[in-house]
Amino acid sequence: MKLLITGGAGFLGARLARTLLDQGQLGGRNIQTLVLADQAPARAELTADPRVQARVGPLLATCEALREEDFDGVFHLASAVSGECEADFELGLRSNLDSTRALLDALRHRAEQGATPTRLVFSSSVAVFGPDAAVPMPALVADDTLPTPQTSYGTHKLICEHLVADYTRKGYIDGRAARLMTVAVRPGRPNGAASSFFSGIIREPLAGETAICPVSPDVQHPVSSPQRTVQGLIRVYEASREAFVGRTALNLPGLNVTVQQMLDALEAVAGRAVRDRVRFERDERIAGIVANWPRGATARRAAGLGLQPEAEYADIIRQYIADHAGHPTALKGLSA
Amino acid sequence: MKLLITGGAGFLGARLARTLLDQGQLGGRNIQTLVLADQAPARAELTADPRVQARVGPLLATCEALREEDFDGVFHLASAVSGECEADFELGLRSNLDSTRALLDALRHRAEQGATPTRLVFSSSVAVFGPDAAVPMPALVADDTLPTPQTSYGTHKLICEHLVADYTRKGYIDGRAARLMTVAVRPGRPNGAASSFFSGIIREPLAGETAICPVSPDVQHPVSSPQRTVQGLIRVYEASREAFVGRTALNLPGLNVTVQQMLDALEAVAGRAVRDRVRFERDERIAGIVANWPRGATARRAAGLGLQPEAEYADIIRQYIADHAGHPTALKGLSA
Repeated sequence: MKLLITGGAGFLGARLARTLLDQGQLGGRNIQTLVLADQAPARAELTADPRVQARVGPLLATCEALREEDFDGVFHLASAVSGECEADFELGLRSNLDSTRALLDALRHRAEQGATPTRLVFSSSVAVFGPDAAVPMPALVADDTLPTPQTSYGTHKLICEHLVADYTRKGYIDGRAARLMTVAVRPGRPNGAASSFFSGIIREPLAGETAICPVSPDVQHPVSSPQRTVQGLIRVYEASREAFVGRTALNLPGLNVTVQQMLDALEAVAGRAVRDRVRFERDERIAGIVANWPRGATARRAAGLGLQPEAEYADIIRQYIADHAGHPTALKGLSA
Repeated sequence: MKLLITGGAGFLGARLARTLLDQGQLGGRNIQTLVLADQAPARAELTADPRVQARVGPLLATCEALREEDFDGVFHLASAVSGECEADFELGLRSNLDSTRALLDALRHRAEQGATPTRLVFSSSVAVFGPDAAVPMPALVADDTLPTPQTSYGTHKLICEHLVADYTRKGYIDGRAARLMTVAVRPGRPNGAASSFFSGIIREPLAGETAICPVSPDVQHPVSSPQRTVQGLIRVYEASREAFVGRTALNLPGLNVTVQQMLDALEAVAGRAVRDRVRFERDERIAGIVANWPRGATARRAAGLGLQPEAEYADIIRQYIADHAGHPTALKGLSA
């Protein structure tokens, strides 16, 4: 089979690609070709695999060519992140709305030519939820909580959920939208996402660096490890339409934890010295965005697909440490 | 003040224009200029008013010019109807999504140039609601019921609600989305809307013609008269932001009536002979669309603005008859 991952050079996209290449199949079908589309070049360790093709460029431009190409399945992960979309409104519209529309229209074009509707998993986000004066947000957001997004990023994700549902209803694609919880611990450098600090307050101390936490310790949020998130995307892809139930987006599982609990877990796993590298320094812009995010989520439909969050946050930290066993600088804070 | 009505040659747009011209002011400010934008030419009785300017052409093209023009307020009613959007997917995308986006971006452009954010009322629709396998639809849909639209029309209306909310949050416009209930009795000929028969089963018999009802008599649906609908749009425009509450769309009031009750009211108002001109002949395509529509709606937030539905359906029929007192052919069935 032939698969496409948009955002295939990103952290999650690359991890999904690695997982798919390692397992060699998806839904019982062998993976012959895996196309990684991204603005950035795909990672060398992935392109070294003869099954991998990289397409580098803006997704909008890439989609034009996709009208002439058949894929069995697509994981649509490409996205500008929340902070970027708040800072640059047009970038958000282009990257998150117009690109998704162009992708869906390319797939529709194929179906109209007689191709089997392409199966597509769209990575939506817990950021679709937020409090509106007319609609208070529940303590835990569920699959069927009314989304009233409070960022452009969340707005665009929600809009794309509904486009995916409608293109599916029309038979142009076989689409499924899954709302990712905040993924932590992300490797690398902080990015433009307002949620970046959730990874930073674990990653930087483990590397021996100071981390700034821009919100108070009682901020609670649903998070998921990279591994569980990728497993969730794959499971949603493999589910039958009946098992997915309907065309509305579902929540992927998350662990509802406070910043305090994250730091306590960090101390339990890595010691007091590591935890002490986190300094609280309130950033009003970040705190303001985060104040509008859910404090927790449930994932009933995902549980119906057999998906569960980690048992505890310490497991997420241990996963990060295990993933970086071969990268001593990432963990040099551990031995310090 | 200077106002724009998109869809200003349509039935509701023209009625809104007539009402605004007659009252001469909106929110206490005199109306100097009323621009009617539409694909079709505006009605002569409106363009005869020196305050009225007509812009004829596709909204997408019209919006380009709007980037150089300031409006105090906009009523955005232009839309392809539900049946058209199901029959022609691209028409729906262009007319209902791309045109709204272009309008919002034109207004954003003005705000970025320093203009006061334009007040905008967007006519959304009860068609945003529908049953999804994962989300059963309640007997009555409320302001905060989760919309899972089952038509492209409803999908696009919902998407535009969220665009209006986000452009408002960013300060580019002062937007308010109001969900119209099915408007009846519409004058003229049947249109491409799947809901067209709700008007037809009253209008045609009153004109002495046979009408076909494509659904069963127990179909129930929230309807509103043209007059109350126009009043609702004006009230939503005039409301303070605090009174509108939040940025989420609200339901305009509707009367939840069955087809049976509509026909009983027709008999009560116009007599048995008129009612007997309605013949039931099931149309699976229409019935299938209507089966996914809400059987009723509530409008709590609209009530907070002082908006109420008619007391009974007979009032809606009487309004239609009064509106057509000067058009004997429209009522020739009455004296037959």
